[in-house]
Amino acid sequence: MIVIMRSRTPQEHIQAVVDKVNQLGLKPHISAGEETTIIGVIGDERRLDVSVFDMMEGVERVVRVLKPFKLSSRDFHPENTVIQVNGTKIGADSVVIIGGPCSVESHEQLFEAARVVKESGGTLFRGGAYKPRTSPYSFRGLGEKALTWLAEVKAIYGLAIVTEVMSPDQIPMVSGVADIIQIGTRNMQNYALLDAAGRSERPVLLKRGMMSTIEELLMSAEYIMSNGNEQVILCERGIRTFETTTRNTLDISAVPVLKELTHLPVLMDPSHASGRARYVNALSRASIAAGADGLLIEMHPHPEQALSDGAQSISPEAYTTLIGDVRQVAAAVGRTL
Amino acid sequence: MIVIMRSRTPQEHIQAVVDKVNQLGLKPHISAGEETTIIGVIGDERRLDVSVFDMMEGVERVVRVLKPFKLSSRDFHPENTVIQVNGTKIGADSVVIIGGPCSVESHEQLFEAARVVKESGGTLFRGGAYKPRTSPYSFRGLGEKALTWLAEVKAIYGLAIVTEVMSPDQIPMVSGVADIIQIGTRNMQNYALLDAAGRSERPVLLKRGMMSTIEELLMSAEYIMSNGNEQVILCERGIRTFETTTRNTLDISAVPVLKELTHLPVLMDPSHASGRARYVNALSRASIAAGADGLLIEMHPHPEQALSDGAQSISPEAYTTLIGDVRQVAAAVGRTL
Amino acid sequence: MIVIMRSRTPQEHIQAVVDKVNQLGLKPHISAGEETTIIGVIGDERRLDVSVFDMMEGVERVVRVLKPFKLSSRDFHPENTVIQVNGTKIGADSVVIIGGPCSVESHEQLFEAARVVKESGGTLFRGGAYKPRTSPYSFRGLGEKALTWLAEVKAIYGLAIVTEVMSPDQIPMVSGVADIIQIGTRNMQNYALLDAAGRSERPVLLKRGMMSTIEELLMSAEYIMSNGNEQVILCERGIRTFETTTRNTLDISAVPVLKELTHLPVLMDPSHASGRARYVNALSRASIAAGADGLLIEMHPHPEQALSDGAQSISPEAYTTLIGDVRQVAAAVGRTL
Amino acid sequence: MIVIMRSRTPQEHIQAVVDKVNQLGLKPHISAGEETTIIGVIGDERRLDVSVFDMMEGVERVVRVLKPFKLSSRDFHPENTVIQVNGTKIGADSVVIIGGPCSVESHEQLFEAARVVKESGGTLFRGGAYKPRTSPYSFRGLGEKALTWLAEVKAIYGLAIVTEVMSPDQIPMVSGVADIIQIGTRNMQNYALLDAAGRSERPVLLKRGMMSTIEELLMSAEYIMSNGNEQVILCERGIRTFETTTRNTLDISAVPVLKELTHLPVLMDPSHASGRARYVNALSRASIAAGADGLLIEMHPHPEQALSDGAQSISPEAYTTLIGDVRQVAAAVGRTL
Repeated sequence: MIVIMRSRTPQEHIQAVVDKVNQLGLKPHISAGEETTIIGVIGDERRLDVSVFDMMEGVERVVRVLKPFKLSSRDFHPENTVIQVNGTKIGADSVVIIGGPCSVESHEQLFEAARVVKESGGTLFRGGAYKPRTSPYSFRGLGEKALTWLAEVKAIYGLAIVTEVMSPDQIPMVSGVADIIQIGTRNMQNYALLDAAGRSERPVLLKRGMMSTIEELLMSAEYIMSNGNEQVILCERGIRTFETTTRNTLDISAVPVLKELTHLPVLMDPSHASGRARYVNALSRASIAAGADGLLIEMHPHPEQALSDGAQSISPEAYTTLIGDVRQVAAAVGRTL
Repeated sequence: MIVIMRSRTPQEHIQAVVDKVNQLGLKPHISAGEETTIIGVIGDERRLDVSVFDMMEGVERVVRVLKPFKLSSRDFHPENTVIQVNGTKIGADSVVIIGGPCSVESHEQLFEAARVVKESGGTLFRGGAYKPRTSPYSFRGLGEKALTWLAEVKAIYGLAIVTEVMSPDQIPMVSGVADIIQIGTRNMQNYALLDAAGRSERPVLLKRGMMSTIEELLMSAEYIMSNGNEQVILCERGIRTFETTTRNTLDISAVPVLKELTHLPVLMDPSHASGRARYVNALSRASIAAGADGLLIEMHPHPEQALSDGAQSISPEAYTTLIGDVRQVAAAVGRTL
Repeated sequence: MIVIMRSRTPQEHIQAVVDKVNQLGLKPHISAGEETTIIGVIGDERRLDVSVFDMMEGVERVVRVLKPFKLSSRDFHPENTVIQVNGTKIGADSVVIIGGPCSVESHEQLFEAARVVKESGGTLFRGGAYKPRTSPYSFRGLGEKALTWLAEVKAIYGLAIVTEVMSPDQIPMVSGVADIIQIGTRNMQNYALLDAAGRSERPVLLKRGMMSTIEELLMSAEYIMSNGNEQVILCERGIRTFETTTRNTLDISAVPVLKELTHLPVLMDPSHASGRARYVNALSRASIAAGADGLLIEMHPHPEQALSDGAQSISPEAYTTLIGDVRQVAAAVGRTL
Repeated sequence: MIVIMRSRTPQEHIQAVVDKVNQLGLKPHISAGEETTIIGVIGDERRLDVSVFDMMEGVERVVRVLKPFKLSSRDFHPENTVIQVNGTKIGADSVVIIGGPCSVESHEQLFEAARVVKESGGTLFRGGAYKPRTSPYSFRGLGEKALTWLAEVKAIYGLAIVTEVMSPDQIPMVSGVADIIQIGTRNMQNYALLDAAGRSERPVLLKRGMMSTIEELLMSAEYIMSNGNEQVILCERGIRTFETTTRNTLDISAVPVLKELTHLPVLMDPSHASGRARYVNALSRASIAAGADGLLIEMHPHPEQALSDGAQSISPEAYTTLIGDVRQVAAAVGRTL
């Protein structure tokens, strides 16, 4: 940590900071310049509250030096983590596509979607039983009934299931069906849920909060991992900005940044990011070109009849086209699909 | 709802939209211009998914006409809601200040803070037993022990207690002590928690998500209210922007906007918004001048020793000064403190 | 400046940074911790490009220590700058209100507005001759004709004139009429214009870019001041965020932050910030309560006929009310109007 | 345009809006629902100020129906615009790369960079003579001397020159050397400059403001085009968000969105977007995969010695690698390089 003092701070304020550092059992390094003084503090700042110094008289600001995450950090785990689900490797050379509808709406819709995913060569299937919705008056998912049908899809098509949990008490039941449990964007900092997912044995697909920094995403992964579950898959799904032609702004730079900072697999969700079916193909190609390990794609047998997020769901035909297009780009960057 | 068609869309696409509207039992109103056609749809769009139309061929975009919230809307409830807690009215002529430390750290710290609040004439006291923290390695609150001490504060000083809940299962126990249960910024869209708070009998202090719109805040209030609990107090606590001199940007305009849109009381939290003790007084004065019903202020007997958020906690002396300053401003806008 | 090295960087990379520092004639201070090393660099970093170090191998990031502005900094000029125009002091104990229409539209409109300002006790009058508009097809101001009329207003009512310049070549002509030349939000980083304004003898009202940080605002003031013109008045006018109920988000915290960082006067423009006449009164009160030195208020004799920005212009009646309300708040914070 | 009235507005307010519409020579279409009334207004709203209605009593809000841009719109010009410079087509099947240093620093640096671009098969060269810098104390470019050297590069290597103009008076001189004149992100809404560029005969490379919407970018293109210069090349270069691991957030979605809305060529600038040399390759691949027509890449013979923006400049070796990588991706999406 570095404590930057204000210009022309009296010596006693500087000394008080130095005393505090020593008192905490840490070592201060003082650099006195003409206009200001900076005090380097060496020690494990992960467990230190920087506000302690922030509050002291004469302190301009405090700069953290170490990254606050550890288990998810590539510094401490240089090789990529590969997560294996139902024979499919996530985070390895081959990129993956998790396809399926936003929410499970009917037995027929679900099986039609599953058939499309299966026939296109997919192994991972998504579908929501519990849906977080901005409005309490919107369709909130079929719940247990949807889980039963997802279990059927798994049994019949052999697809691994990815589905969302919204509260700690849903985890046991959902884990009975899901191969990967998903934590949605609005729950990225729901710490009770992160703790519970950390005690689960299922891999966790953690979506970035639409208003969260990359560092915060990694800190939330740290919550799960520090509870013992190291199988975390990260997913960028668009962040909130001032631009309105797309629902959110896909942060494509998150791919190389995360690949540098962490060993965990990185997926992209262009469907939620754009909120528009017609932009999904271009954003999928871009994601794979940037180095993402895979995609989450919303596909609906009849998008115009979807009970939620129809505007961002692509049709089975568009889904098949997308897979072909993504395969070309994957090959161009030395990967397979 | 208004469906705006793209320029020069063929008639058949327009007709398909009109058919869809009729099929849903709604009435279309067509306005055909030279370049484009717009189709007004009259009916309760709160239960209608706009994506249905968004997906159709030739549709440029869909504009909602009605506000999506109802129970919280001033349109349906013109008079201010006043919430009474322990003899104090929130949302009435007199503004309120909820003071106290970010988190309960020790018996001594808690009682010292409570004494300051009491002696300054306060009736509402805040202190966190469960703390949401970005890092799993930070201090996360004393939990039950803190609740016991808060109960003591209540018994001895007669202060009403405001404290945060982070998951549905904490609500029963916390409600045994708290007069108002708080839902924090990261949980504003934790729908399981909102539903549970809606089934509680305690007033709920709902903090705006740091990157949530005002409309989303009202939709979250709607979750609580639609479960039967109409005692919701809204709190603006800073939104995330590109500016870095303050931790967040206090959205002062939220005061007149919320006062127009809703009948619920509106508080402001300048401590979390700025993240800097030295800006809290100015932002408190501004909040009351803008028309807020009260403030949440972090005060710590010894801010430099705080285990969390020390940088934004003011000292007892600054707290007393703040109360005097706010009282002047309240009087200037025709209110009391 | 502080150079933070990556974890476990080889010694040679650290040495390369140290060599570079020495080579630039600066002094390095090395603090070696267990995980990382930080190198403090003492010297005038205002003229140093931090990228020099940013690029070097093993460097994690570079943190600037000194504020990059100097002439505008309170560190080097502790007392408030007071700018005197036409007998009115800006930045002194009394707050000021600059009222008038967004743009000069007709002789009648202008004189009606000027009369309202005069009768309400005002001394400063605003009105645009040249209007920056997002669309080339919108009304862009009456230009020279408007300047002539503004000169009449000045002669007849004795009001000081504030009007905008959009390019360096307009400055001489505009300065013939204007007592204060305004640089608008979209031109805050139009460096040719800032340089030219810096060579003018008129005080400059510099509006914050809707997308600019407070530090960037001060750097733009620095452009003007380093050209010799120290009469700069800063104006916060709302920043761009994700919130849509107001056109921009008034950054009320900018008041205490600027008051701390700079000695220059700080005005607020609640009309442009909110874009809604009905929120202007509340935001004006808040601005003065927070410590602003004054307000820019758009007032139009007939807002519903305005050729630009009618939605944010208040009526003469609302203007008179606002002045009364602001006077109360000014008194509550120990100032006058 | 659609005027949405507030819930339960009295009939007289609705009538006043209808009267106003008729008075402006337009036709109102009224749709009266249970809770509210909406009034469709047919006519060329590009020349109409929506505030006229926004101000009227009982009006909730006004929604524009038509896109405000016309000359740049694909609706009015369905085929792609291809701009030919020095034998290179921009906006055609082949993607282009404009490489070179941020600013011209010395004869040697310039020629070394030009040689790299030439040898890698490039035809377009960038280099700044006039540099917009946040600080007046930073290096601001070599000006005329740099232009002379750029003319040499052109003569010797046969590279077309792209260089920035910062004020209208620089255009004539810069046009003597430049094949494409660039308008930078801070000047995207410098209307005097846009007007002047519109009267130039050189193609204009217009960079998106770092906090401007896509619609505003197209409106600025409209400024140039409405002055007679239809050769506009758009460039996305990162927008300002809350994320701090990259300097700005590259808005990759802008590619498919712009390709849909406009016929103008679309380039991407991953160097300025990320501000970090090590992310440029990944973002370049993503940009081309998404469908961009080309890239602006900062390359410096010795990035660690750069006088500006060294941190984002890649080395000649990295540049050569990037060209190979981009060529693969271009082929995967059916294009060439």
